[in-house]
Amino acid sequence: MYTVDELQKIITTELQIRSEELKKMTPANLYLPVDYSLEMGGKRLRPVLLLLSYNMFSDWVENAIPAAIAIEVFHNFTLLHDDIMDKADVRRNRPTVHKQFSENSAILSGDVMAFLSYQYLLECKSEGLPKVLSLFTKTAIEVCEGQQFDMEFENRLNVDETEYLEMIRLKTAVLLACGLKAGALLANAGTKLADQLYDFGINLGLAFQLQDDLLDSFGNQQYFGKKIGGDILANKKTFLSITALENARGDVKTELIGWLNKKEFNSSEKINEVLNIYNQLNIKELTEQKIETYFQKCRTVFHEISIEESRKKHLQEISNNMLNRVY
Amino acid sequence: MYTVDELQKIITTELQIRSEELKKMTPANLYLPVDYSLEMGGKRLRPVLLLLSYNMFSDWVENAIPAAIAIEVFHNFTLLHDDIMDKADVRRNRPTVHKQFSENSAILSGDVMAFLSYQYLLECKSEGLPKVLSLFTKTAIEVCEGQQFDMEFENRLNVDETEYLEMIRLKTAVLLACGLKAGALLANAGTKLADQLYDFGINLGLAFQLQDDLLDSFGNQQYFGKKIGGDILANKKTFLSITALENARGDVKTELIGWLNKKEFNSSEKINEVLNIYNQLNIKELTEQKIETYFQKCRTVFHEISIEESRKKHLQEISNNMLNRVY
Repeated sequence: MYTVDELQKIITTELQIRSEELKKMTPANLYLPVDYSLEMGGKRLRPVLLLLSYNMFSDWVENAIPAAIAIEVFHNFTLLHDDIMDKADVRRNRPTVHKQFSENSAILSGDVMAFLSYQYLLECKSEGLPKVLSLFTKTAIEVCEGQQFDMEFENRLNVDETEYLEMIRLKTAVLLACGLKAGALLANAGTKLADQLYDFGINLGLAFQLQDDLLDSFGNQQYFGKKIGGDILANKKTFLSITALENARGDVKTELIGWLNKKEFNSSEKINEVLNIYNQLNIKELTEQKIETYFQKCRTVFHEISIEESRKKHLQEISNNMLNRVY
Repeated sequence: MYTVDELQKIITTELQIRSEELKKMTPANLYLPVDYSLEMGGKRLRPVLLLLSYNMFSDWVENAIPAAIAIEVFHNFTLLHDDIMDKADVRRNRPTVHKQFSENSAILSGDVMAFLSYQYLLECKSEGLPKVLSLFTKTAIEVCEGQQFDMEFENRLNVDETEYLEMIRLKTAVLLACGLKAGALLANAGTKLADQLYDFGINLGLAFQLQDDLLDSFGNQQYFGKKIGGDILANKKTFLSITALENARGDVKTELIGWLNKKEFNSSEKINEVLNIYNQLNIKELTEQKIETYFQKCRTVFHEISIEESRKKHLQEISNNMLNRVY
């Protein structure tokens, strides 16, 4: 069985091969931004989860590589379009595609990536492919729904926890779960195991996104890689901000809403003052508890997956890694 | 066998059913623009071609309806994104999606339409489905390539006929051809017949687009439905403008380039003067000859398709209709 590191290397190598192909395709201006976005790096979490899941049931990981590439290309397609919609100028320390090239480029090269992901997926020779195609398509639709909810939440003050969790389920968790389930289906693992891995993926994805929310406010900048407090500055709806608004009372609530409505402010003052309120409301602990709830659900599902323990250990390893980012 | 009119009615009815479904889906703001764009109408050419082709080989047209809807939804997805890229404000006498809703809506609802088209396609129960999925995906990629070439041509003066024909093959012809071939494949018609229908579709698509170019300059406004001269005003690369630039000499060439470079002008004067040049250069006749070349290729392929004549007659009928638009 392959370790997480080995799977990551397999994906890097394969992406380099695809990148060489893309560099030769015409029209060059359509495929250059595709290559640019894939070369940006990132953790390659989704393809790793897919291969890792496949590898739980089959040793012939090569067979699932096109599907792994497909899910990574799909993920990057969503980044291209999300970055236009969110007016994000920088990703992974480089200009986003619409900044580096143009908005039209980001739209059209994004589109072609969506179809390239199907083309890669269709390269897979597996009896499970029809099921994977349906799963992948359903997931893609859900990811669009998640992005729509996320955009709508920006203009609303009254988003509640349930709505927020449903949004991150759609925007983040379903794609991780899709990777895990697709790996199992491609390896002909059977419906029950595939569904258990999906369930595992949803809970892992929710925990992962909540932790991302937490790190944005309470992370160690050095390890987190992004500036701390970005979400606070942008009044972003996160588990933290929603829970704070729900739990705040009296003067604290007035103060919090004041910061949300303030048009002009000193950035570090706003971050510090809102963090102060979060601390008064135990937001860090409440978020950690929520993460732990979902991680506990992962553990429960994990133990129910009835295959040899030795074949499950890398799934445990990667989930631990994903949720043990330093803060 | 169904007539073209009957097939059109089948599609209209089915689109109404899908429209009712879309109206109930959440987030409403994601699916509303999808419904808006599908309700806009249009000739439903691509789904009609798909069903008509299916019906050449099988009577159970119902089986191919989801694929017909898929190709129509895909076509409308391209319109949403193209209209953003081309900054088009009006389509079929209504505001385009990015004008009626927002640019973000047009991007994201367009995206979800791309995936809905796969979801509809995957509803088809047919042995031919895997081949159709590959064909559809290849076609979608080509349509993106065509749009990229089209955008690039806007900023070039030296586009030649070969490049232009390749652009319209990708942007327009391959999707018509895909519809015809997909219908055949879903009906298990065999590779040779499916490929002949594809070939027929490419030539039909090229003739159809060239005729669209012709009508924009020489059409009868009443029948054409759009203002005459739009392409001339916008300096659009069309078969007419490219042939005129290639064939013009001396003063005529200077005058033509003068009109292309003029920043301020009276619209009807520009249209009239350029049409004058086109008349001097016999552009109308040259374009008609080119259309006839491709239509002749259609006829040749048509006669080579070795199935009962009675099953081919509606294909002949729709092609004649498509190329006999009044001008």
